[in-house]
Amino acid sequence: MRRAGVFAEFKSRRCLVSGGLGFIGSNLVVALDRAGAEITVVDALIHRHGGDRRNVGDTGADVIVADIGDRASVDDAVARAEYIFDLAGQVSHVDSMQFPLVDLDLNTRSHLALLESMREMNPHATSVFTSTRQVYGRPRYLPVDESHPVCPVDVNGVCKHAAEQFFLLYEQRYGFRTSVLRLSNVFGPRQRLRGDHQGFIASFLRRAVQNEVLTVFGDGQQKRDCVFVDDVVEAVALAALSDHAVGEVFNIGHNELLPLAEIAETIVEIAGSGEITYTPWPQERSAIDIGSFATDTSKAKRLLGWEPETAFADGVEQTVQFIRAHQDWYL
Amino acid sequence: MRRAGVFAEFKSRRCLVSGGLGFIGSNLVVALDRAGAEITVVDALIHRHGGDRRNVGDTGADVIVADIGDRASVDDAVARAEYIFDLAGQVSHVDSMQFPLVDLDLNTRSHLALLESMREMNPHATSVFTSTRQVYGRPRYLPVDESHPVCPVDVNGVCKHAAEQFFLLYEQRYGFRTSVLRLSNVFGPRQRLRGDHQGFIASFLRRAVQNEVLTVFGDGQQKRDCVFVDDVVEAVALAALSDHAVGEVFNIGHNELLPLAEIAETIVEIAGSGEITYTPWPQERSAIDIGSFATDTSKAKRLLGWEPETAFADGVEQTVQFIRAHQDWYL
Repeated sequence: MRRAGVFAEFKSRRCLVSGGLGFIGSNLVVALDRAGAEITVVDALIHRHGGDRRNVGDTGADVIVADIGDRASVDDAVARAEYIFDLAGQVSHVDSMQFPLVDLDLNTRSHLALLESMREMNPHATSVFTSTRQVYGRPRYLPVDESHPVCPVDVNGVCKHAAEQFFLLYEQRYGFRTSVLRLSNVFGPRQRLRGDHQGFIASFLRRAVQNEVLTVFGDGQQKRDCVFVDDVVEAVALAALSDHAVGEVFNIGHNELLPLAEIAETIVEIAGSGEITYTPWPQERSAIDIGSFATDTSKAKRLLGWEPETAFADGVEQTVQFIRAHQDWYL
Repeated sequence: MRRAGVFAEFKSRRCLVSGGLGFIGSNLVVALDRAGAEITVVDALIHRHGGDRRNVGDTGADVIVADIGDRASVDDAVARAEYIFDLAGQVSHVDSMQFPLVDLDLNTRSHLALLESMREMNPHATSVFTSTRQVYGRPRYLPVDESHPVCPVDVNGVCKHAAEQFFLLYEQRYGFRTSVLRLSNVFGPRQRLRGDHQGFIASFLRRAVQNEVLTVFGDGQQKRDCVFVDDVVEAVALAALSDHAVGEVFNIGHNELLPLAEIAETIVEIAGSGEITYTPWPQERSAIDIGSFATDTSKAKRLLGWEPETAFADGVEQTVQFIRAHQDWYL
């Protein structure tokens, strides 16, 4: 089992996870906790952002409820950490257009403040920052590798990219051990399912499990790669452990490319409930849509030895089971 | 006279100039005022940033002392403006590394707030945002055109680039009439000369006029292009007036490439005072130095009909005269 081996390295290590009550963060916390790490979570529990204490309820993680940029609250935890996993963020692209200054504060300013905290308190910690493939904007070629031009089509993409650049700058200027992961469409247990502003997979999963209508925009032939959260947290761990990761940017996605219509069908089939309709693109979404997307993850394979292991259908199976077992939290 | 013709278009036009008490902003205000524009200046008069009421003392400009992102102070002026020249900013690269959050607030956040003000109050205004060639970082080829990869080597470059991207995004998403100018090394009358954190030309000019020692780092063979402020404000005006400018980024620099040693020598010769020494690069500056730089301004020539008209020596002549005539302000 490659995965267990990776996390074993964190036994008794002091790990700080920002956004650790949220979707990807809490899955990382669960994996680190199983491996015997000493975990401090920093999470602002911002309304609608997916943070929920129950996500890490079975773990021994300490929880600080604060923004990761709130120096008074986090400096001590930063000073103690050996590994800093900076996963906090506002992930809604639509929200970023409606409240752009909030996005800038949460996705850029807070992370620059964290970097300043690290510079002062603990410049030798290893850190990983999670960004988004949205920074590439509309792809000029497929699959998109890390050399593809950055051209965000929304405020969220601009803000996440600025934060990436700060991490890479602090590596260059201050010798930080840090790396950046650009995540594709991530799904899995502990994902926020309420509301439709967190992306299409969460919406599809919720509607299928609740036996509602899944809405596919356009003809559903746009392709996406969907990566299971267990694969993503493994990539985060490998990036923290590898000397080859320092100062590098990695795409983290899946090589299984699926049309949106097929994604919806697979989810309905596995859930055994739900129904699909097709509808024209709403104006505010079409403006930030990017067409088909495919991620080239060969750099992560080459330098980190990482590749996605979970087939989409297997991930959906596990996710649907998890949602059904925790319906009172997630629906 | 091409230049007079350009500004005549602004007669009786309502113009808002952010940073209008600073170096480039005040030169723009003077030119617009001569042409009979109705000018409102917004300037925060931040300590050490170069803003000075005397820079526009001879003009009829209204002055609001506020940050351009301070909605309560600027919304009314934004609502009234036909042209918005957003020239406010923190320009010290060294300061940006020491106080990165200040740089983010002044160079990114305030401008996103201005864009939100425009979106709500006046989405049909024409705007120009001035950025810096520093966003390119260490050049991968010379001369640097607008397609050169963006790879800032300091916090200032990251912050200015994020602001650029917001302007371009608001053009794409909301149909703003806006353009971005990436300025090279600008010099001329009304430039802040005190302190050595505003770039090498200001430091050289002050020291020469005061008959002090001009310090050239390294062997002085690194090349720079220096563009006179009158040429820059003309580019700003042309960008506002041209339909071809909308949604575009333009390099604004000079095709006269000069080694730093020669720049110092020319200044000493024209001033008739000062003395040059050579010294090794200080560590904190060498880390953000970018080697030789040359700007390709052919896009501005092609789309705006702009090119630099002032030879370096002529610009220095005018600047030295201005400094000597206003010694009490600038020295």
